Amino acid sequence: MAKAWALRQVHRLPPFFAVGDCRAIRAVWDGPVMRIADPSEAAGVFDEALPVVQVEDAADIVPGKPNMAGARCSLDALELAAGLTRSGVASGLVTAPVSKAQLYAIGFVHPGQTEFIAERCGVAADNVVMLLAGPTLRTVPITTHLAVRDVPDALSIELIVAKARVAERGLVRNFGILHPRLAIAGLNPHAGEEGALGREEIDLIAPAVEILRDEGIDIVGPLAADTMFHERARAQYDVALCLYHDQALIPIKTLHFDEGVNMTLGLPIVRTAPDHGTAFGIAGQNQAHPGAMIAAIALAGKAVRYRATSA
Amino acid sequence: MAKAWALRQVHRLPPFFAVGDCRAIRAVWDGPVMRIADPSEAAGVFDEALPVVQVEDAADIVPGKPNMAGARCSLDALELAAGLTRSGVASGLVTAPVSKAQLYAIGFVHPGQTEFIAERCGVAADNVVMLLAGPTLRTVPITTHLAVRDVPDALSIELIVAKARVAERGLVRNFGILHPRLAIAGLNPHAGEEGALGREEIDLIAPAVEILRDEGIDIVGPLAADTMFHERARAQYDVALCLYHDQALIPIKTLHFDEGVNMTLGLPIVRTAPDHGTAFGIAGQNQAHPGAMIAAIALAGKAVRYRATSA
Repeated sequence: MAKAWALRQVHRLPPFFAVGDCRAIRAVWDGPVMRIADPSEAAGVFDEALPVVQVEDAADIVPGKPNMAGARCSLDALELAAGLTRSGVASGLVTAPVSKAQLYAIGFVHPGQTEFIAERCGVAADNVVMLLAGPTLRTVPITTHLAVRDVPDALSIELIVAKARVAERGLVRNFGILHPRLAIAGLNPHAGEEGALGREEIDLIAPAVEILRDEGIDIVGPLAADTMFHERARAQYDVALCLYHDQALIPIKTLHFDEGVNMTLGLPIVRTAPDHGTAFGIAGQNQAHPGAMIAAIALAGKAVRYRATSA
Repeated sequence: MAKAWALRQVHRLPPFFAVGDCRAIRAVWDGPVMRIADPSEAAGVFDEALPVVQVEDAADIVPGKPNMAGARCSLDALELAAGLTRSGVASGLVTAPVSKAQLYAIGFVHPGQTEFIAERCGVAADNVVMLLAGPTLRTVPITTHLAVRDVPDALSIELIVAKARVAERGLVRNFGILHPRLAIAGLNPHAGEEGALGREEIDLIAPAVEILRDEGIDIVGPLAADTMFHERARAQYDVALCLYHDQALIPIKTLHFDEGVNMTLGLPIVRTAPDHGTAFGIAGQNQAHPGAMIAAIALAGKAVRYRATSA
């Protein structure tokens, strides 16, 4: 986030502030940091320094060393930032990667930050959708952190329809796409080859597509997953709905590893995150590639503007 | 194949001949075609025209219309070409896409051309390996045309070890890579997150990796599949072993849609094929992208030279 601030002009980033620990930021970054007492000061400070809203009790953080104090600080920061966004003090929420193992160790009961944010927004975790966005591709995994063995039975017509609806509305609201074009992948090789290689396309995906079309949603598929992500294919749709984690994540990270953004659709707030891990191994070594964080901030800014325009 | 001949000098292709029907080729292509009685004439003709070894009884073929006559001609051509390569008259076999539905209709009992060729070479279909090769990535699917639901139970330590061995030897023989670096993907999201998202990584993949390392094979993994195909990650290995069809095919076709080659490893002969379908819809319309066929011929030529050098 500090590197993103340094590149704020090149990338024309909207003003933002960090929620965290000033000392920890200064330990890994030489640029100007200014503690602000209230988020309303952020825009005024932004040209001169990275504005930081300080979380309390962040004494024992060691950058690069995941520990309990770091986890508590992350959670406090997440809670504060989510609250500031939910109440409208901030117009969008961008989260940084956290160590889930450490969060679990201090009693965090949600699978990830997304579920925590959904709860704070009063939305059931099942009703939000993870969108992965890169410069030339957007994908949505319909199931996420599930073993491959459990994916086929986790799929249902209802689940596909529900996720597709949220994805479609999300593209309208956050990307300003008036009539989003959806494409849905098949689960099996060659989209099942008419049932020869699996029946989920016939029994679940095609019926879901029919329901969605009856609602006026522009959706094609099920398409063979291996031939839907090359350049000419990507030009045919605004979002690819995928059935499982790697089907959505492999193409995005193969094409846009350093600039992939994870946006949560279905929330009352704008929320994005860089689509990479914590990278504790390179903390403070000035090796972090800021592209994904910059893209996450830029995309949040755009989504805020689209929502304001369409409201 | 005709377009590849036309571009033979640009791409420095080795001399090749077609096995098929002269009339059908002329119906979709304006360039010079010369029927040869014996493959030994091909090199002499190659500078002037596309040499064609004519298959018999090819009277009723209509380009762009899959029919029984076309399927019989395809099968005759495949049988003849495989025999010519097996006997050493041709030094490598490049197959074009066929309509499987039509082949099945005339009583073809193999799942695809690869299994037919393996049989003609006296190799069990289980012992050959499909390698997908593009300019910056090679992948091997350890299981191929299987429903996703059936993939986890089809995997075994023995299968992974056997396919990895064939892949390793194939890179040495056909690509001249003395010490191939293999990387194997996990089956589940994040390679199973230490068992939290599936146990195949712990129970099958890691033990297979250990056996392979004990044999002196350079292999890493299981790696999270979504982060192993971006540019910097690809530079770390010579081949990515994948657990299922789309895990291997999505990254190759996303990156190298018009130049992907399917090479069969584990055969006594060199065999490649363009990694795309029949495209009956554009037959004779001069829209076919010849990149994959050119790449398939070029790769076969290189493999022939590497085998000759190392023999």
